[in-house]
Amino acid sequence: MSVPNPYWLRDNCPCTECRNPRSGQKRFQIGDLPDGLTATEAHRDETGLHVLWSDGHRSHYPTGWDAPEEAAGDHRTEHGKRLWEAADFARGLPEADWSSYLSDPEERIAVLSAVRRSGFAVLRGVPAEERQVLAVAGTFGYVRDTNYGELFDVRVEPDAVNFAFTDAAIAPHTDNPYRDPVPTLQLLHCLRNEAAGGDSGLVDGFRAAALLREEDPEAFALLARTPVPFRYRDRTADLAAELPMIGLDPRGAIREIRFNNRSIDTLRTLDGAELDAFYAAYRRFAAITLRPELRLEFRLGPGDCLIFDNTRLLHARTAFEQAGGRHLQGCYADLDSLSSTLSVLRRNVAALDELEALFAGEGAGEYLGEAVTMAEHMLQAGQLARTAGAPPALVAAALLHDIGHFHGSGLKLMAGTDNRHGDTAADWLSRYFPTAVTEPVRLHVPAKRYLCTAEPDYFAKLSPASVHTLGLQGGPMTPTEAEEFAAGPFAADAVTVRRWDEAAKDPAVGTPAFAEFRPLLLELMS
Amino acid sequence: MSVPNPYWLRDNCPCTECRNPRSGQKRFQIGDLPDGLTATEAHRDETGLHVLWSDGHRSHYPTGWDAPEEAAGDHRTEHGKRLWEAADFARGLPEADWSSYLSDPEERIAVLSAVRRSGFAVLRGVPAEERQVLAVAGTFGYVRDTNYGELFDVRVEPDAVNFAFTDAAIAPHTDNPYRDPVPTLQLLHCLRNEAAGGDSGLVDGFRAAALLREEDPEAFALLARTPVPFRYRDRTADLAAELPMIGLDPRGAIREIRFNNRSIDTLRTLDGAELDAFYAAYRRFAAITLRPELRLEFRLGPGDCLIFDNTRLLHARTAFEQAGGRHLQGCYADLDSLSSTLSVLRRNVAALDELEALFAGEGAGEYLGEAVTMAEHMLQAGQLARTAGAPPALVAAALLHDIGHFHGSGLKLMAGTDNRHGDTAADWLSRYFPTAVTEPVRLHVPAKRYLCTAEPDYFAKLSPASVHTLGLQGGPMTPTEAEEFAAGPFAADAVTVRRWDEAAKDPAVGTPAFAEFRPLLLELMS
Repeated sequence: MSVPNPYWLRDNCPCTECRNPRSGQKRFQIGDLPDGLTATEAHRDETGLHVLWSDGHRSHYPTGWDAPEEAAGDHRTEHGKRLWEAADFARGLPEADWSSYLSDPEERIAVLSAVRRSGFAVLRGVPAEERQVLAVAGTFGYVRDTNYGELFDVRVEPDAVNFAFTDAAIAPHTDNPYRDPVPTLQLLHCLRNEAAGGDSGLVDGFRAAALLREEDPEAFALLARTPVPFRYRDRTADLAAELPMIGLDPRGAIREIRFNNRSIDTLRTLDGAELDAFYAAYRRFAAITLRPELRLEFRLGPGDCLIFDNTRLLHARTAFEQAGGRHLQGCYADLDSLSSTLSVLRRNVAALDELEALFAGEGAGEYLGEAVTMAEHMLQAGQLARTAGAPPALVAAALLHDIGHFHGSGLKLMAGTDNRHGDTAADWLSRYFPTAVTEPVRLHVPAKRYLCTAEPDYFAKLSPASVHTLGLQGGPMTPTEAEEFAAGPFAADAVTVRRWDEAAKDPAVGTPAFAEFRPLLLELMS
Repeated sequence: MSVPNPYWLRDNCPCTECRNPRSGQKRFQIGDLPDGLTATEAHRDETGLHVLWSDGHRSHYPTGWDAPEEAAGDHRTEHGKRLWEAADFARGLPEADWSSYLSDPEERIAVLSAVRRSGFAVLRGVPAEERQVLAVAGTFGYVRDTNYGELFDVRVEPDAVNFAFTDAAIAPHTDNPYRDPVPTLQLLHCLRNEAAGGDSGLVDGFRAAALLREEDPEAFALLARTPVPFRYRDRTADLAAELPMIGLDPRGAIREIRFNNRSIDTLRTLDGAELDAFYAAYRRFAAITLRPELRLEFRLGPGDCLIFDNTRLLHARTAFEQAGGRHLQGCYADLDSLSSTLSVLRRNVAALDELEALFAGEGAGEYLGEAVTMAEHMLQAGQLARTAGAPPALVAAALLHDIGHFHGSGLKLMAGTDNRHGDTAADWLSRYFPTAVTEPVRLHVPAKRYLCTAEPDYFAKLSPASVHTLGLQGGPMTPTEAEEFAAGPFAADAVTVRRWDEAAKDPAVGTPAFAEFRPLLLELMS
């Protein structure tokens, strides 16, 4: 059979010789592959595509490996966005309460996803305290320090060098166009807003640029191909960036807006008719950004924190009365980390959904002849750990110690043999959980073999099924094995889990729902 | 006379109604200018271009306003760089000793300028202590936090998820291609390198790309127009960016290289002949980056800190023996702040050069009939402050208090009248110095008028020339004026400077050289 480009296919070989299975990082350089590489043999079966390469390497591509992942990619161009006008938010802004945002992963996903898709979201009820904006940024990324500091205060300053720190109205603009890399996210947290005026406005710069493209394609093209000198100077800074107002990706999709007349330095690269055309295009684009139907207006009150995409949204404010008192604190952060946080959160929630489904499905099956189901057994173990006041990682280890018995395709677990189900579970869990969870799970079978040696009366506590599997698992440890085991870093935790394991087989005890453990599990995952 | 595009010209009006004179920020939006704007009158004289606009605004463009500033712009494309091959550094790397870098602004300029022009520099003798790399970054910018932390340790880790933390050789690559914004600078500080192997290599990615363009323009164009999916995943991160390996500015100049096969995810946007062409181009580019003549090899020893442009240079290392011990600490930072620091440093050094020239030139002239020259007078005042153990800002204020008397075109000072020379000096100094320097200078004339009122015997200490100017300056303050003056924030400092001023007129006293004050002045400027 024919294969696609051999270098492409080989570059995607998923084997552990070619890649680190945890990060997906490749262990080879493209130049390490020989010239004239070909597939010597290739065949497809129900498990996927098998290739023997001319250099002797063998690859196996599991069925579906090349299906595009849902929501993959960086979502940074207009194609990854929902372009909007003000009326699209007639029923309300994308917003969440700070405490729900912190406690409920679905709320967090909704907020971060709104920032990525619509360019902004508002958190309500963030404590109106100084420096709190940094805590908001810390929930999804890293603060970007600039010459304005780790954070900046937006309020009236005597003798302000920067226009932001006056009481004047400010037309829609992006911040820091004179920086490259520009801060891709901005946060504004309202501490006080008793002033008459001082309302906030947002305009979707991608939408404005798309309108310009529709209405005047030549103006659009000119703004997209003309690097503009942006500059900011004060006593301790002299920042300069030369980039177009409308940044396109190599295929012509809108990817970045820099729009701030305050900081445009003298454009010296055009003259004559080109300069005339440029200023006409610039004024036309500026006029679009001022259309009332594009401008979303709202008022930030104390405790509100606006998070927005500074590569896309233009922000504005109305003039205000100095006397009233208006104080925002702002900081910058970056979209890449926000997107990463969102992806990890989604991945974690999906993994918990899978686990919950497995507990409800396969988990309802019998558990090696015990009087409880597999799910009841694990839920009881988790409950025993919780009741004992164990640290969250041990509660999770107790709850999940036997997931290696699940065959569920959702989990993509290989069927664990009795000897291996601890490893199988720990390997899968290591994609989501730290070693404090995974290693006690990995060691819960050896812990039984250890206890039977270390504690003479332990064997008597085993259920008949557990006695049976002990034999399959290698029987009690030799004294040397037991000594080595006890010296390992997670041995004590594994022994603790093991005791809950033995005790969690009581048909008379009620079991908690899996859902009760979800917040604890999610916390451990991040 | 005809003028260029009226919107362009008006957008550049330098008047203080249109701009904040300190930051150059414009106070208007492009859309604030009326449709159909024209120049009603325009004429040129020896001071520049005068324009009366159709909306009644008047602009004055001083002669030379539109001459391109030396070294303006962001210097980020290949046109702002010195492209190199290894042999270009046969006579040595761009490097400096850490202590000279800290104490000598010319060394600092040379190092930062090398990073901007050649893409890298090495600091020697940076204390081989943990976290010291953050101090290096702090001399020119801000550390960029990532999922790897504020800093990262490059040494062998057991069970490393990232290839960097093994003992393997690493081919030339850029870091974090899966981030957007990518960290534009990387620092690597060597704490230990006793290993056999573990040498460092750098390749100029702009040079490699330029070679590809020469040798295979189609391959170059294909890599420049194909967004590549870069990705990195581990337990707590899922970072993705889709950008071409060779990033161009809108005019086709090379602006950014992303090159790291370890992190290229499955490319799904091309197939057939396009995919074949892409992989051929990619392998051709990879082969160029491996040419020995392009690769600069050197060894980092303890205390060496390499700073390099991660949007341009590929870095590499040879494999090493784990036993030997190799430990680097790294962090990320950004080019925009480095460039800003460089510009400010150059501006400050240029201002000090101008001041020094004025002291030597006009300063040699007579000082209002006193027995010392103007320069001797100011140098004596500075020396008196220094001898008194005054804080640096007051030494500077004493040294510079009378620069408002200079007419030097270099300083672009307006001739100060006797009444105004404090303000003239303070206004000029405020472009470089904090208020602790400028305000005592501003108030040194009022301080004389104050002292004559507050201290009955002060008048008797004045020289005849000072008595004469006292009259021109308004004479002694009224008691109310004196009370108001004394309540101001810098009054006490101004009075202190004033006393040195009166005492600094002794022809018998030797005067220090201006150069002696330069380090103190430069420190105050940054």
